[in-house]
Amino acid sequence: MKAKTPSDSRTVMTDLVLPSETNPLNNLFGGELLARMDRAASIAARRHSRRITVTASVNHVAFNRSVPLGSVVTIEAAISRTFRTSMEVFIDVWMEDRFSGERTKANEAIYTFVAVDDAGVPTEVPPLVPETQLEKERFEAALRRKQLSLVLAGKMKPHDATELKALFMD
Amino acid sequence: MKAKTPSDSRTVMTDLVLPSETNPLNNLFGGELLARMDRAASIAARRHSRRITVTASVNHVAFNRSVPLGSVVTIEAAISRTFRTSMEVFIDVWMEDRFSGERTKANEAIYTFVAVDDAGVPTEVPPLVPETQLEKERFEAALRRKQLSLVLAGKMKPHDATELKALFMD
Amino acid sequence: MKAKTPSDSRTVMTDLVLPSETNPLNNLFGGELLARMDRAASIAARRHSRRITVTASVNHVAFNRSVPLGSVVTIEAAISRTFRTSMEVFIDVWMEDRFSGERTKANEAIYTFVAVDDAGVPTEVPPLVPETQLEKERFEAALRRKQLSLVLAGKMKPHDATELKALFMD
Amino acid sequence: MKAKTPSDSRTVMTDLVLPSETNPLNNLFGGELLARMDRAASIAARRHSRRITVTASVNHVAFNRSVPLGSVVTIEAAISRTFRTSMEVFIDVWMEDRFSGERTKANEAIYTFVAVDDAGVPTEVPPLVPETQLEKERFEAALRRKQLSLVLAGKMKPHDATELKALFMD
Amino acid sequence: MKAKTPSDSRTVMTDLVLPSETNPLNNLFGGELLARMDRAASIAARRHSRRITVTASVNHVAFNRSVPLGSVVTIEAAISRTFRTSMEVFIDVWMEDRFSGERTKANEAIYTFVAVDDAGVPTEVPPLVPETQLEKERFEAALRRKQLSLVLAGKMKPHDATELKALFMD
Amino acid sequence: MKAKTPSDSRTVMTDLVLPSETNPLNNLFGGELLARMDRAASIAARRHSRRITVTASVNHVAFNRSVPLGSVVTIEAAISRTFRTSMEVFIDVWMEDRFSGERTKANEAIYTFVAVDDAGVPTEVPPLVPETQLEKERFEAALRRKQLSLVLAGKMKPHDATELKALFMD
Repeated sequence: MKAKTPSDSRTVMTDLVLPSETNPLNNLFGGELLARMDRAASIAARRHSRRITVTASVNHVAFNRSVPLGSVVTIEAAISRTFRTSMEVFIDVWMEDRFSGERTKANEAIYTFVAVDDAGVPTEVPPLVPETQLEKERFEAALRRKQLSLVLAGKMKPHDATELKALFMD
Repeated sequence: MKAKTPSDSRTVMTDLVLPSETNPLNNLFGGELLARMDRAASIAARRHSRRITVTASVNHVAFNRSVPLGSVVTIEAAISRTFRTSMEVFIDVWMEDRFSGERTKANEAIYTFVAVDDAGVPTEVPPLVPETQLEKERFEAALRRKQLSLVLAGKMKPHDATELKALFMD
Repeated sequence: MKAKTPSDSRTVMTDLVLPSETNPLNNLFGGELLARMDRAASIAARRHSRRITVTASVNHVAFNRSVPLGSVVTIEAAISRTFRTSMEVFIDVWMEDRFSGERTKANEAIYTFVAVDDAGVPTEVPPLVPETQLEKERFEAALRRKQLSLVLAGKMKPHDATELKALFMD
Repeated sequence: MKAKTPSDSRTVMTDLVLPSETNPLNNLFGGELLARMDRAASIAARRHSRRITVTASVNHVAFNRSVPLGSVVTIEAAISRTFRTSMEVFIDVWMEDRFSGERTKANEAIYTFVAVDDAGVPTEVPPLVPETQLEKERFEAALRRKQLSLVLAGKMKPHDATELKALFMD
Repeated sequence: MKAKTPSDSRTVMTDLVLPSETNPLNNLFGGELLARMDRAASIAARRHSRRITVTASVNHVAFNRSVPLGSVVTIEAAISRTFRTSMEVFIDVWMEDRFSGERTKANEAIYTFVAVDDAGVPTEVPPLVPETQLEKERFEAALRRKQLSLVLAGKMKPHDATELKALFMD
Repeated sequence: MKAKTPSDSRTVMTDLVLPSETNPLNNLFGGELLARMDRAASIAARRHSRRITVTASVNHVAFNRSVPLGSVVTIEAAISRTFRTSMEVFIDVWMEDRFSGERTKANEAIYTFVAVDDAGVPTEVPPLVPETQLEKERFEAALRRKQLSLVLAGKMKPHDATELKALFMD
């Protein structure tokens, strides 16, 4: 399979925050943002694999900034690393103030998708070749995240997660 | 503040999987489930704190089973541990086969909410007293998750996360 | 067919009242509540019959209390009586004040569903055995409601509706 | 207050049945139809009263015909009788076959709305003068329905409901 | 094929403007109105042709009046002229002030639909016979609009658009 | 006011075509595309003006290609010319085949927005400096479109529309 770059799958989803998506403080519901990110990330995963893709997992997501009603929200998703049949998708979320236009980072999130055939059976995906410095860093870090994920799922013993273990040993 | 039990906040949200919420394999979009769980968990957090509550973070979520179109999905959310102004909410997701009625565990997820006043400032929440064996186990494990969360957010050094470190040392 | 109890079909649907569901007084539209109750009741009917179920009729519904924006609404539906192919579903609606948590009865409603096979043909359902005092009262009253329904549909002559007639004779 | 006719409030709402509104047999959910009828009826009630109007009750509704996906559904609502602060709205529902264009009556329903001021307090509405034969029949029958409604709500003793009682005595 | 009149296809769609459909000035989004008009017009086109119909084009639409939250919007659509397989649909949009009931013209728009068979191949439609003065004027003007449309699409040379050319020569 | 370039306002909105947005041939409703384009264009207009923006008009739009269920649709909107208080927004719509990933032009559309202050009064916008060859062509053509728009609205006499007239005289 021919390798692809993160640019090949980069997906930009810009949209408004509408009244039906906000909590009593008039900020976007966390759950709505999770759903939008899932849609953007699934498009990125499809662009990389040209397969049906299904959400396999979502990494820890922190909501550090609230996104007010009427903001413009831009979600950028691109593949950060591939494994045999799965793809890690890195998602950056930006929000723009309605009037000043000031653009601030609202969130980061990492979703994992699996490519499947029409019967739902996992199927191989093309390899990824990171290009920019940031893409390379995210590619490297993806391995540690994969180990953490396996440990949390009980599929890898903690002391076998060498990359992760090193993190706690420094 | 008077302590509460997990039963005081337990929230049950049963609903159908509709066509507009499914992917090309006719299974519920991962993102839709994340959004529903957020709504159920926010109700549980409000029931515990009687405050406006906002999503602070979502733990690692794995989608091990797909939920087909037409399934009945039951989401049960209850507070599993409180910290000063935040609440960990444990969410169990069950799905029922449309015809056999067989009920299987579809997912587990853990969200953290913060209680805020009308100006959005974090405010104290009542303590939690777990009652059942499962509630006690979840209460204990919440501390390790809290440390992992702080480490991932760069707010705690890995070698200070004693509970977590022990996990990799066994 | 093996009899079931109301507990076997009890369905709890808890959710928020969102801005897009409210009238100019910021209260939940009556029609939205009717639609939510239909979804909850159809799940209860499916749980009892393990069949596709379709709404056959809705009894008189009174909206005595308005449900404000931001309330938590809990709908509880359970089978109250079965006939050959139809099921009466009794629905209780509770609302919780956003901050005090005070829980008040907002509504009661009674829907009737028919179980059908894949071709839409009505098909037999299991009998119901009421257990609690309230379940027994609702089971008894269901017969009068059935007669009223037949009379209103012109399928029973008023003077044959003995149970109902008695009501006006006392 | 100047009297109005049913034509003054007649409201026509024509729309399609979309996939997200259908059950597993690909027919319109009963609850969706109840919600659409409520919207149409609330517009009719507003046109008569020029006030904010809120749903007070829904009469018994029977779903005798299923409405398939892709049908065109036409809802016609008009005031059938007024009381001091409330209005009975009679609703006729028609469906058109997608291809033959054959138009059949799908449903009838009767909702009651109350006119309120900005503080939600019930306020008087103009009287209604029925014109056509059908409008006159519906106007007459509304009184019996009002009595039935009061009896069911426990606000009128059955033996005081003279019009209704007569129905069972013939 | 038997000719039809504009009355045969006239479609009335009355509905409210809800909070989730409004911009920061609390007026209906232009795009929402375009979508509602498309649904109403597609029903009119189906009523004329008794075929599946697909939107072929939308003429220039000007939004001269804003439609505030809570307004009642009435869309009336009817066929204004037919060509071999296409139908021009003329759409009038009225809005009613929430309280005074004053009804003002909010918009006009002209959409063109093509009738297709199940494979999506264009198929002939019945001719149209305009009846009222307004219907006759719209029928005449439709030819000029057709030419303009062909010119804009590069399918007709401007100097061949005789009707249209005359407009600029007077 | 400092001039801006089309890049300053370029807005990319990528999303899926879901079942609730498709017609009986399983293609995206024209009206849904019109609504999505309006949202994307309004964001571009806001990015240029940093004001509230309202849709003033939509140019002739042709739907030459149908967009099937499950496609990825990418909408790109950017300011093509400004007038004193209004902005012409040029919109390109691309669709991607679900599996081959082949990207084809699905549509082009041109919307005009007006910038307004909080009271809804039109307010001046920054000038636009086109950069690429395509941007320059669209900038030039915008003047002809403006004249056509004025003629169609009856605000300019056809024989004063010199640019437009020339088109029919060649």
